[in-house]
Amino acid sequence: MSIVDVAERAGVSPATVSRSLRGLAKVSPDTRRRVVEAARELDYVTLLQANSIEAGPRRTVAVIVPYITRWFFSTVTAGAVDLLRSQAYDVMLYHLGSADVRDQFFERVPLDARVVGILTLSMPLTEEHTLALRALDLPMVSVGTRVPGSPSVGIDEAAAATSAINHLLHLRHERIGLISGTADDARFGFVSSAARRRGAERALAAAGRPLDPRLVADGSHGLEGGAAAMAKLLSRSTLPTAVFAESDELAIGALWALRRAGLAVPEDMSIIGVDDHEMAAMLDLTTIAQSVPEQGEVAAELLIQLLDGTAGDDVCEPVFLPTRLVLRASTAPPPRPRRTTAPGPGSSGRGRASRTG
Amino acid sequence: MSIVDVAERAGVSPATVSRSLRGLAKVSPDTRRRVVEAARELDYVTLLQANSIEAGPRRTVAVIVPYITRWFFSTVTAGAVDLLRSQAYDVMLYHLGSADVRDQFFERVPLDARVVGILTLSMPLTEEHTLALRALDLPMVSVGTRVPGSPSVGIDEAAAATSAINHLLHLRHERIGLISGTADDARFGFVSSAARRRGAERALAAAGRPLDPRLVADGSHGLEGGAAAMAKLLSRSTLPTAVFAESDELAIGALWALRRAGLAVPEDMSIIGVDDHEMAAMLDLTTIAQSVPEQGEVAAELLIQLLDGTAGDDVCEPVFLPTRLVLRASTAPPPRPRRTTAPGPGSSGRGRASRTG
Repeated sequence: MSIVDVAERAGVSPATVSRSLRGLAKVSPDTRRRVVEAARELDYVTLLQANSIEAGPRRTVAVIVPYITRWFFSTVTAGAVDLLRSQAYDVMLYHLGSADVRDQFFERVPLDARVVGILTLSMPLTEEHTLALRALDLPMVSVGTRVPGSPSVGIDEAAAATSAINHLLHLRHERIGLISGTADDARFGFVSSAARRRGAERALAAAGRPLDPRLVADGSHGLEGGAAAMAKLLSRSTLPTAVFAESDELAIGALWALRRAGLAVPEDMSIIGVDDHEMAAMLDLTTIAQSVPEQGEVAAELLIQLLDGTAGDDVCEPVFLPTRLVLRASTAPPPRPRRTTAPGPGSSGRGRASRTG
Repeated sequence: MSIVDVAERAGVSPATVSRSLRGLAKVSPDTRRRVVEAARELDYVTLLQANSIEAGPRRTVAVIVPYITRWFFSTVTAGAVDLLRSQAYDVMLYHLGSADVRDQFFERVPLDARVVGILTLSMPLTEEHTLALRALDLPMVSVGTRVPGSPSVGIDEAAAATSAINHLLHLRHERIGLISGTADDARFGFVSSAARRRGAERALAAAGRPLDPRLVADGSHGLEGGAAAMAKLLSRSTLPTAVFAESDELAIGALWALRRAGLAVPEDMSIIGVDDHEMAAMLDLTTIAQSVPEQGEVAAELLIQLLDGTAGDDVCEPVFLPTRLVLRASTAPPPRPRRTTAPGPGSSGRGRASRTG
């Protein structure tokens, strides 16, 4: 069964079948009817879809996202667009990867006229931007940012950071450091970053061990930034025995810098991240896992409910998806203080690994 | 300058401004004219855009891509969609991540009626699929796959593999192995994979060292697959002294497996990949680099030329973008054969590194 069969039955060319089924104007109503009938008779389109061809175009959702090249963003986007497609929605993709591109977009919000709903996926938006979107008077759902009066989906960022710190505290780490991510452009920062840092600070303060600023370093989001931040820590007078990195990408960069420096993980330093990035398992990184595709799926489902009129009264209550500690080999109790006398020949105990860069 | 100013000047609500500017039907022609005038007077839309609002909707390109969660695909997609947006094209994203989803799509090719052109980005398509796309009678450009009669953009896959093998041969490696990627679903395989393998085989044969099947292993595309393939090699009787992995993701997985096994790179084994993946620099992976965003950009430019009628006569000649060897620390001459007598105390020379997993 193909477009050629439909063309044969309708007595037109395959291109005309295509134009007819896609609802283009340059096909005469007569021809179009003939094609739709042929397509129906041949089950080339299901009844529902033939109806929708007659009723007008498919419904389209605008998906606004800052990056599709970074793991978190592409994964949440894939979750959302796959769910939308499965429910017969089309997706207009607005990839706004810098403050300039975003601001240009928001000067006019040139959304396609056929857009019936909006998903913003971890998009850094100011209040002015969210107002502009709300002025469109279209159903809207956000991942990662809260827009008053619209549904939002995400994780409890502070709680994720607290879980990570608690794990390090239970291992009896006393010098716990922090690697946090910075935006390359201050106008394009992520709220999750600040929230995770606050969560970590509070958890440490609650345990009576306020964060020591000498054990804190930052780097731009991503692997290189994590390596740069760890290099800063390694150049200070006192090393942390454990580091909470605000994301797995930062943590992986930090792991790499430690390896370069000849330090062993977890023997010399423990590292924990947040995300459960696709590389985390391979690198044996302990982390606070979040379910990223699910955030996109839940957001898309809520948007469809708004569009269908089936959303509950509490649809605008923020949805927090659970996070969980995933134990791997990058965290362990802190190294025992070095003895001033050399250990005897019978000494067992985990020694410092000998490594070459 | 915001939608609120336009609304005030036109004497309507911001929502009406939005609906008018987006060309929705439920606004009266009178109101719409008033809003467009106000928007023009306030420079809220440029003249061009005001014209296009009057002339009809913006132009839309369909982007068809198998994965947006994997580095190569998301990077090529970002290159294409950013260029399209800069030229005022909208993007309908068709994310077809499995043979089933793809085949379902191709049963009817439910492209939005407003789509004026198609980009397929490294999409595994059968001849039947490409015929169905051509039957749509729309300008089309492909990355990574060649569609007769349509422009295509990519790299010379065989030449990339040849460059990698030549580098290993010049280092005097005699036992060169190969890690190749397999599709999880045979109906959804990538042509680049077979082309790279053929290129490697030919380069080895040309050097008088035909590929030894005992030094070949495969794994599914991605990090885990690379680790699995290296594990297969490590379980055989003879180890290669150098391995060409068909992609950087496979190479990175292989590096990880070697580290786990306590073998040092490049002292015990050299590894080279293809891509220059975002992680390659950090992991010091020697690779054959390709410019991935540029492939998306060039494809988008060619499509725009077809749409504008400015394409040259040779537009359907395949475009091959250059690749280049990037030397890093994962390749070196092979280990010297082990001596049966232990080296004397004054022996220099690079010894086997002592590592712990």
